[in-house]
Amino acid sequence: MENLYVIKIGGNIVDDEKQLKAFLEQFAALEGEKLLVHGGGKAATELSRTLGIIPEIIEGRRVTDADTLKIVTMVYAGLVNKTIVAGLQALHCNAIGLTGVDGNCIPATQREVKEINYGFVGDVNAGELNTTTLGAFLEKGLVPIIAPITHDRKGQLLNTNADTIAACLAAAFAKTHNVKLIYCFEKAGVLRDVDDEQSVIDRLSSFEYEKLKQEGIISKGMLPKLDNAFFALKQGVDSVYITHALKVADAMAEKNNSGTLLYQINE
Amino acid sequence: MENLYVIKIGGNIVDDEKQLKAFLEQFAALEGEKLLVHGGGKAATELSRTLGIIPEIIEGRRVTDADTLKIVTMVYAGLVNKTIVAGLQALHCNAIGLTGVDGNCIPATQREVKEINYGFVGDVNAGELNTTTLGAFLEKGLVPIIAPITHDRKGQLLNTNADTIAACLAAAFAKTHNVKLIYCFEKAGVLRDVDDEQSVIDRLSSFEYEKLKQEGIISKGMLPKLDNAFFALKQGVDSVYITHALKVADAMAEKNNSGTLLYQINE
Repeated sequence: MENLYVIKIGGNIVDDEKQLKAFLEQFAALEGEKLLVHGGGKAATELSRTLGIIPEIIEGRRVTDADTLKIVTMVYAGLVNKTIVAGLQALHCNAIGLTGVDGNCIPATQREVKEINYGFVGDVNAGELNTTTLGAFLEKGLVPIIAPITHDRKGQLLNTNADTIAACLAAAFAKTHNVKLIYCFEKAGVLRDVDDEQSVIDRLSSFEYEKLKQEGIISKGMLPKLDNAFFALKQGVDSVYITHALKVADAMAEKNNSGTLLYQINE
Repeated sequence: MENLYVIKIGGNIVDDEKQLKAFLEQFAALEGEKLLVHGGGKAATELSRTLGIIPEIIEGRRVTDADTLKIVTMVYAGLVNKTIVAGLQALHCNAIGLTGVDGNCIPATQREVKEINYGFVGDVNAGELNTTTLGAFLEKGLVPIIAPITHDRKGQLLNTNADTIAACLAAAFAKTHNVKLIYCFEKAGVLRDVDDEQSVIDRLSSFEYEKLKQEGIISKGMLPKLDNAFFALKQGVDSVYITHALKVADAMAEKNNSGTLLYQINE
């Protein structure tokens, strides 16, 4: 089976022109099939504020009313996506910017209203990911750059968590590829102490994760990312790293000190 | 040779939710290989105004400073493009939204500063259009939906005239396809009297065009579109129609009263 790197880059890196450039240089240099999922960053929040729309975020997820949906579509699928693609093209990486809507790559379902009405937020239909179209692009040497916007196949755009998209894509491709999933962000990895960049947990099993979670050691913001990561491992993804954006090349080479390597203990 | 329809939809239709929906229904129903180039519409101008940036337009072209480039990238490549793609996907048309940056489909060059500094405006490198990647998408049954943003291959995004993109794509594909180019907008065709929708010129040769141009009969706003259209014909495109968006199916079927049919008189 072909190797495939599924890489997620977080919003804080996307916001930082210098760090983004340094990340893209490492990403462009990586050999083999790869795809990138990017978050949104502060640009959407800033644009909302300028337009007088106050963004509401519940448990790390933006509540997406009709105006906010327009803004995230503009910022994620437009500005951020095309800035990344143009940057990669300049580095001779044949990037192609996509959302889950394009070629119906990532069908989703609008989240049901329970206690919270998240508005136009989508949950990925994990079983229906269109790896055929994305796989054909990869085979042609194209490098998909995916913005976290999906649709319900009835014409409704949906704001969707980028970590989840990366995990679902990694899981779907695990049927046909040796998939390595790497979450890149502004920290060195999963930290024991959120204020100490030196406290990186080198290796973390699903068993230890449950333990640390119960002890309240892992910061709340990390929980959705880790849940996504362990989901991907369970679905047959070869390995998952959580690391700093500028350690992406090291993580791909599976070097030591490349952030946190997650592993699954089979029961 | 395979038939290919290259269709351009103007900004005034894109702005009108009902008319856009009706157009997309006709477009989705068309059989055979097709691609759509869309303009921007008023959304970019409105967003600029809201953000306190006053758009400057010289000879139908927006002067694009750094802030305006961000806005057109957000609106054209983000909001407008993905709204169209989601609408077509709901109609079971396997649309894929692209800019000229994606897969390096449309390389361009930033316009030189002569009398006017247009800012980040690109002129298409007509000889370098990447029909291989777009052609592969068409063969797979994907329908490219192209937003008028290009790049200089050095990382710079460029705002680019959508009429020109449509003409250049039509011309480039004329080497491998029987190409029919259709410019769709909010008027019934090329009018003798801009205030009289009944004054459509049914057929217009390059010879008659030059004559009408000299006589000042054709409205100024139509000139760039017609120059693009006759350029495409000269490059081997089979036919060019200029018609109302809701006449697109008629124009594809080459029915009478389908707007203005342009033709080339070979010298």
